[in-house]
Amino acid sequence: MLVVKIGGGSGTRIEPTVADLTDILRAGRRLVLVHGASGETNVLAEKLGKPPRFVTSVSGIESRYTDRETLEIFEMAYCGKANKAVVEAFQKRGVNAVGLSGLDGRIFEGRRKESITILEGGKRKVLRGDYTGKVERVNAGIVTLLLDHGYLPVLCPPAASYEGEAVNVDGDTAAAELAAALKAEEFVMLSNVPGLLRDLNDPNSLVARIPAKAIDDFMPLAHGRMKRKLMAAAIALQGGVRRVILGSANIERPVTSSLAGQGTVIQ
Amino acid sequence: MLVVKIGGGSGTRIEPTVADLTDILRAGRRLVLVHGASGETNVLAEKLGKPPRFVTSVSGIESRYTDRETLEIFEMAYCGKANKAVVEAFQKRGVNAVGLSGLDGRIFEGRRKESITILEGGKRKVLRGDYTGKVERVNAGIVTLLLDHGYLPVLCPPAASYEGEAVNVDGDTAAAELAAALKAEEFVMLSNVPGLLRDLNDPNSLVARIPAKAIDDFMPLAHGRMKRKLMAAAIALQGGVRRVILGSANIERPVTSSLAGQGTVIQ
Repeated sequence: MLVVKIGGGSGTRIEPTVADLTDILRAGRRLVLVHGASGETNVLAEKLGKPPRFVTSVSGIESRYTDRETLEIFEMAYCGKANKAVVEAFQKRGVNAVGLSGLDGRIFEGRRKESITILEGGKRKVLRGDYTGKVERVNAGIVTLLLDHGYLPVLCPPAASYEGEAVNVDGDTAAAELAAALKAEEFVMLSNVPGLLRDLNDPNSLVARIPAKAIDDFMPLAHGRMKRKLMAAAIALQGGVRRVILGSANIERPVTSSLAGQGTVIQ
Repeated sequence: MLVVKIGGGSGTRIEPTVADLTDILRAGRRLVLVHGASGETNVLAEKLGKPPRFVTSVSGIESRYTDRETLEIFEMAYCGKANKAVVEAFQKRGVNAVGLSGLDGRIFEGRRKESITILEGGKRKVLRGDYTGKVERVNAGIVTLLLDHGYLPVLCPPAASYEGEAVNVDGDTAAAELAAALKAEEFVMLSNVPGLLRDLNDPNSLVARIPAKAIDDFMPLAHGRMKRKLMAAAIALQGGVRRVILGSANIERPVTSSLAGQGTVIQ
């Protein structure tokens, strides 16, 4: 079992991954794809006159403040535009893909955090009406059902809260929990960077290998999204995944290359 | 087996149908819901500065001209906003709904019509780059799989072309083909009107009963969307569905009322 996550940051190409996964599927491998759409969400939010608002909680974690209107924009970008574009790309190649969000069949489930305490201008402020959460449980039944019947599941946020509401969740964490739930041997996370870099401005400063036990030691090197990716890698490894690879989506055969050891390999 | 289609025209409420179907499901009935989102698509298209363009083909059928940009707006409104709103409404009530488009698993499949010949200002004109089509085949495997495992399938356009492209298709026709494929006994079509009216401006002019063989005789009474609904009813009946009911979505217990004989019953 292989779980692949492809980020949705601007500049991340989906085509090389679709082409590569098509070949990997034809070779008989069982796999699931999870994707993001954060760049698309930002573009749509701007166009609709509701620019994205990123807030930093008192514990230092950055997230998208997701009021009801933002949640709907998020769903349009993730489940509407991005998910159907990925499914269509596979269908054009003859792969019978099925796109689902974590809300469908409650595949990704977790607690909604209705309010968030942020620091703004040095002051604490409580924001309410937030539709964000964290995946705590994976109901993989429907995913297994689809795999057993020859479909390729293509998943994305939102998740379902325990009350059945749609909630914005981190896609890397969701994919890591899924990899653990499906007992995947390998979990590949692709994005618009080649892996963990010692120096963000130097693509040659790639950290090629990280021992699973030493992830925490490398955390100070990770900035922004990369911090979440290392945390997701830790979740997957703790959940029994043997190998996690952070690689670039924007090369030929991105998944095959990652599995061959390109990128940052954590094991 | 029961197939329910709820229209997506502006002013169509979804909540009464969700509440009613929750009770019907709990009573043990097997069912599938198909929904539209044309009103939502129009609103979003306007907001994004790409107002909808409706064209009338030389054969007199009106449709939404769907270039690539419109297709993406269509997917955002149908698969993103509307479909996830319906799934969420069910999940909040404890019904394990799963939202899918006709592209997913190629549930709805048909030929893409890449160009359309229209009449404009008395002249024939060929519009190219159209992503519309007509559902000719239903691959119900995945729907049956979900039903057999206790999920509620919630479906919507687009469909898949034979080449795997996403195509805008009429939702009523898609639902009718599905009802036939699933061997449904009943097919209920709900919208913002109470059924077929002899006089559009008089809600008391409802046609209460139409014999299946006489559908064609009632066609002259049907205007706009209602014409498509009668055509869809004919497809379902020819496909073996016993009874088709056109009813209002904006009443309490819209499905139960329709099954009890309110609205226009065609059998």
